[in-house]
Amino acid sequence: MRYIDIRSDTVTQPTQEMREAMFKAEVGDDVYDEDPTMKKLEKYAAEVVGKEDALFVPSGTFGNQLSIFTHCERGNEVILDDSSHIVVHEVGAASVIGGVQLRTINSDKGVMSPQDIKKRIRKGEDDLHFPSTGLICLENAHSNGRVVPLENMKEISEIARENGIPVHLDGARVFNAATYLNVDPKEITQYCDSVMFCLSKGLCAPVGSLVAGSKDFIQKAKKKRKLMGGGLRQAGFLAAAGLIALEKMRFRLKEDHENARYLGEKLSEIPEISVNLDDIHINMVFFIINKNINFVEMVSFFLEKGIKINPPENGEFRFVTNYWVSKKDVDYIVETMKEYLKK
Amino acid sequence: MRYIDIRSDTVTQPTQEMREAMFKAEVGDDVYDEDPTMKKLEKYAAEVVGKEDALFVPSGTFGNQLSIFTHCERGNEVILDDSSHIVVHEVGAASVIGGVQLRTINSDKGVMSPQDIKKRIRKGEDDLHFPSTGLICLENAHSNGRVVPLENMKEISEIARENGIPVHLDGARVFNAATYLNVDPKEITQYCDSVMFCLSKGLCAPVGSLVAGSKDFIQKAKKKRKLMGGGLRQAGFLAAAGLIALEKMRFRLKEDHENARYLGEKLSEIPEISVNLDDIHINMVFFIINKNINFVEMVSFFLEKGIKINPPENGEFRFVTNYWVSKKDVDYIVETMKEYLKK
Amino acid sequence: MRYIDIRSDTVTQPTQEMREAMFKAEVGDDVYDEDPTMKKLEKYAAEVVGKEDALFVPSGTFGNQLSIFTHCERGNEVILDDSSHIVVHEVGAASVIGGVQLRTINSDKGVMSPQDIKKRIRKGEDDLHFPSTGLICLENAHSNGRVVPLENMKEISEIARENGIPVHLDGARVFNAATYLNVDPKEITQYCDSVMFCLSKGLCAPVGSLVAGSKDFIQKAKKKRKLMGGGLRQAGFLAAAGLIALEKMRFRLKEDHENARYLGEKLSEIPEISVNLDDIHINMVFFIINKNINFVEMVSFFLEKGIKINPPENGEFRFVTNYWVSKKDVDYIVETMKEYLKK
Amino acid sequence: MRYIDIRSDTVTQPTQEMREAMFKAEVGDDVYDEDPTMKKLEKYAAEVVGKEDALFVPSGTFGNQLSIFTHCERGNEVILDDSSHIVVHEVGAASVIGGVQLRTINSDKGVMSPQDIKKRIRKGEDDLHFPSTGLICLENAHSNGRVVPLENMKEISEIARENGIPVHLDGARVFNAATYLNVDPKEITQYCDSVMFCLSKGLCAPVGSLVAGSKDFIQKAKKKRKLMGGGLRQAGFLAAAGLIALEKMRFRLKEDHENARYLGEKLSEIPEISVNLDDIHINMVFFIINKNINFVEMVSFFLEKGIKINPPENGEFRFVTNYWVSKKDVDYIVETMKEYLKK
Repeated sequence: MRYIDIRSDTVTQPTQEMREAMFKAEVGDDVYDEDPTMKKLEKYAAEVVGKEDALFVPSGTFGNQLSIFTHCERGNEVILDDSSHIVVHEVGAASVIGGVQLRTINSDKGVMSPQDIKKRIRKGEDDLHFPSTGLICLENAHSNGRVVPLENMKEISEIARENGIPVHLDGARVFNAATYLNVDPKEITQYCDSVMFCLSKGLCAPVGSLVAGSKDFIQKAKKKRKLMGGGLRQAGFLAAAGLIALEKMRFRLKEDHENARYLGEKLSEIPEISVNLDDIHINMVFFIINKNINFVEMVSFFLEKGIKINPPENGEFRFVTNYWVSKKDVDYIVETMKEYLKK
Repeated sequence: MRYIDIRSDTVTQPTQEMREAMFKAEVGDDVYDEDPTMKKLEKYAAEVVGKEDALFVPSGTFGNQLSIFTHCERGNEVILDDSSHIVVHEVGAASVIGGVQLRTINSDKGVMSPQDIKKRIRKGEDDLHFPSTGLICLENAHSNGRVVPLENMKEISEIARENGIPVHLDGARVFNAATYLNVDPKEITQYCDSVMFCLSKGLCAPVGSLVAGSKDFIQKAKKKRKLMGGGLRQAGFLAAAGLIALEKMRFRLKEDHENARYLGEKLSEIPEISVNLDDIHINMVFFIINKNINFVEMVSFFLEKGIKINPPENGEFRFVTNYWVSKKDVDYIVETMKEYLKK
Repeated sequence: MRYIDIRSDTVTQPTQEMREAMFKAEVGDDVYDEDPTMKKLEKYAAEVVGKEDALFVPSGTFGNQLSIFTHCERGNEVILDDSSHIVVHEVGAASVIGGVQLRTINSDKGVMSPQDIKKRIRKGEDDLHFPSTGLICLENAHSNGRVVPLENMKEISEIARENGIPVHLDGARVFNAATYLNVDPKEITQYCDSVMFCLSKGLCAPVGSLVAGSKDFIQKAKKKRKLMGGGLRQAGFLAAAGLIALEKMRFRLKEDHENARYLGEKLSEIPEISVNLDDIHINMVFFIINKNINFVEMVSFFLEKGIKINPPENGEFRFVTNYWVSKKDVDYIVETMKEYLKK
Repeated sequence: MRYIDIRSDTVTQPTQEMREAMFKAEVGDDVYDEDPTMKKLEKYAAEVVGKEDALFVPSGTFGNQLSIFTHCERGNEVILDDSSHIVVHEVGAASVIGGVQLRTINSDKGVMSPQDIKKRIRKGEDDLHFPSTGLICLENAHSNGRVVPLENMKEISEIARENGIPVHLDGARVFNAATYLNVDPKEITQYCDSVMFCLSKGLCAPVGSLVAGSKDFIQKAKKKRKLMGGGLRQAGFLAAAGLIALEKMRFRLKEDHENARYLGEKLSEIPEISVNLDDIHINMVFFIINKNINFVEMVSFFLEKGIKINPPENGEFRFVTNYWVSKKDVDYIVETMKEYLKK
């Protein structure tokens, strides 16, 4: 049975083209720096985000944590949004791997106030009691589905530069952000010293993310990637799929965004459902159902209808469109919702 | 020359009685658990804050960090006030020693919203992506000079208990808080599982703080104190002074508070000075001078007059009263301020 | 041009069958526990080494470090061979990720004296000054190419069990060891609580290793794998190749061993070369050339002849046979060596 | 009752002169750098060991760990003797505080082979798999009671310098070593970049040790001392006793050594006792009793006679002389031993 899976864009299956590319991939031992497909991917990836060099990593979490570990000295302070992926969804890894102190601040739906950041920046040499701020982390698109305005990133990056502090961008969905903003990805990544972005999720590659930055940064990161157990052997198979993700799939994200907006609008027509349409920036629709619902039952109902959904988190549902969800599928999802709510 | 030192209460000299007690102190090797004066101090300290056991540590930072290290597993999340001493003045130690992830939240002048805490509590077993909250840290009196209401501590401690999460109290100035609230210290410490409090600062002992908690907690902490290099030998000298701090000096803090209030009121009569009198809870007066001032020159001026002051932090001055600052000294400080501002 | 690559068995290309299996692999989101091919691999892997459960990891280093991190509390002591892979080739990761204290001991070519281990075992509760031994690490086959006798593993494992200390086996080449000893792998892995083994190297899969142990251990490891950034998405592609590695390729390692022995014998016939034939247990031949040699030139010479070799480490050459090196290739390698030495 | 305490030299009571110095000590807030007695001690301590600067720390363990933490980057490798105090008696702290990887090697009674050290030195830039050696640790006098020859320290220090690796000396009893070697302490400390030595133990001060090194090293260490909770307030009391320890007590250690030798010789006359007289370098006598003994009973017997002894460790007794143990006391100890063995 074919399912419509709108739980996340991480569930995306690779395309047939990716499978074929993997089948034919020319590979080598990447720890020996001899995997030609990987080299090609890393070179192209660096170009796409306008950085000197790039490095493949097994996951987005790996890439974010590797970046923190590489930028910071242990004991440094990292300023970031309390609702960011690094804080919420990475198992507290920054305290283990990087050994840094998070300084979390509240954001307005993912948009941090530059002034809030500025007043938390510290230099260890100024006061015996202070750690040094080692990094500022941004996230765009935010995992809450919203895109952070370029102007905000610019302001923060200026403050960072004035203080000699690097900026890392969790760009797991940076191409969704670029698509929403209708800009080249480099317009976004110009405001960061390092960026991590994923080949999986909306881009459909099976495994892997990239970290990009200066040559020096990537060289250091490569050593630490080995330490973290991320030195892979014939990784070119994953790179082969990744190349298609980067060369082709990132240009079709608009479709997912349109489907998400269409889904949001359709859902908002249902009386029991409240959708904040303003918050549909990319491929995610968040909504609330104003009715008492047995979530276990609801998930089962949809599953029987061939639709995989997640139960709500803190009362809020999230439906995510992707390559494998067509506009017709959206209609079917909306019909199914209506059917369910009528029961 | 005798100086009036109002930079902090950490500068307090020990009393003559303390010197005499140190001189006569019966001591032994405390790593061998054979220092009788230390044993007496730790026993009494535990009683004072209503805990099963207590442990001497070389400093307040040591005690806070030891408590975090003992309560938490590495990688745990610790929820605490963004403006707390642990975040601001302990050099990022929690990321190094405890290896924990700080989850900082904004407070209203040191008073955290119980709901803000509640919504950040997490259990690792609930989600593969979550770390577990390992500790909630409170601070009373806060290093901003304010006392947190008991009701707020109670609410937070209830939330913590419901979730099986321990509460640590940074009670560096817990006796100032008890004095302000006019309650027994146990009324405050009932809301925490462990508490650190200082023998120096307002209590005038030269060196040392105590950590108190359950027998089991203190036993674990003792091992980790050794690891952190805090196992001292003939520490009874410090304990002898500490006993006087606890047995006598904590009962006279009211005097410092009255002098602080008197100082605040007098300063507020000076036109160029704004004092928020509502914020004078303990022995600290914070104020702003609405006039262009050369701080280096001002500090020198006061020093020549025999008064040691600190320049302002973020535009705000802090004057701290203590055992060695009399009401007459306060008058002299105010006169000197007037003289300076007239220049 | 086709090269004969005898630098390491990590350079092995996957077989055509593996490529086909990857092409057709049924995959899902493994973070959601929904990748059927991965589930199949992990189940089978556990069976092969006689453990309750198994977990896929991106590399051998990842698997060893994850095992240390999962078995130990931070600050624990880990007893292991000074020449083991964990000490020599994992970038000091145990001090970063597990946060443990290595207690390295000398071995006799990879065989540790059980008595040396026994006298280093410690329990933190016995002495305030002691850390607790949290783990003993073995390695079989050793990365020096030798296989550790079962009797030695048995003795160490008994000492460990008497002291309640787990044993981890770095079994990157455990199937080479089983092949050499002519036993089922379970005969080896019965002496450890956890084992890591690689699908790459002699087994030819492109990427990945497995950690196996008790259900409880694997459950904890899964959480920590996420923290370390090893939670992959559609990892079934790698699993598909891995299944062939485990189901088929491990049964043909004897061939590599025979070729290695043949290579060793042939090389030992060359007057300038000293091979310790007793040390050829698996697919590695170590030898010394008793002649002044320009290594850069020598490596180039071989490369021109279509053979990839590494320069010696500490004066010793290592040639490694694998699936892609036939007996005829061995003859050619030996001829090339003779030719080179004649120059 | 007055006891003769020969369990360790850590149990030494301060002298009356020390008590008087503490009573009269001029003190200030050392976190503000304002304690005149502390400043005097640190200045003199640096001179004594021929270093640019020195820093007071609460204990020997604190000083060793602070030095490791200051010299090394996290993940560095530290080469040191498997039987050293840092390995055996510091609770595994180096894995927690410094976050370094210990590379322990066997020594001949505390004397490490320079070649053993040399072959373990590594540079991370040489190989992707290698950590960098960040430090070599020596210990003199060794806690096994023996003094390491200057020639050995010199050889190791030369190897270290050639490789750009700093050397730290655990000189807890460096003045005992200097006394035994009959040299100025600087003759020993010239071979290290940093040294920790204790004011307690044979020198009789109640609490504290010093770390000495270059100005730059001490400046960094001061910040990390604060992080570790070792920033004390009116620490001048401890410094006052420490000054007497350094100015006077270190010159009388010869007496303790003579008493130890005398004790060793007398014990060796007892038929059941084997003393290795060659190993009595400082104030420690190690011996074995060739007779079945109930140690608990034996310790009690001695205690009733007014002598505090420890039970043997690994079958070996250690008796330690100190300021409070006279030659007459030694006679009494030997008589008591004879009496006990006659029973």
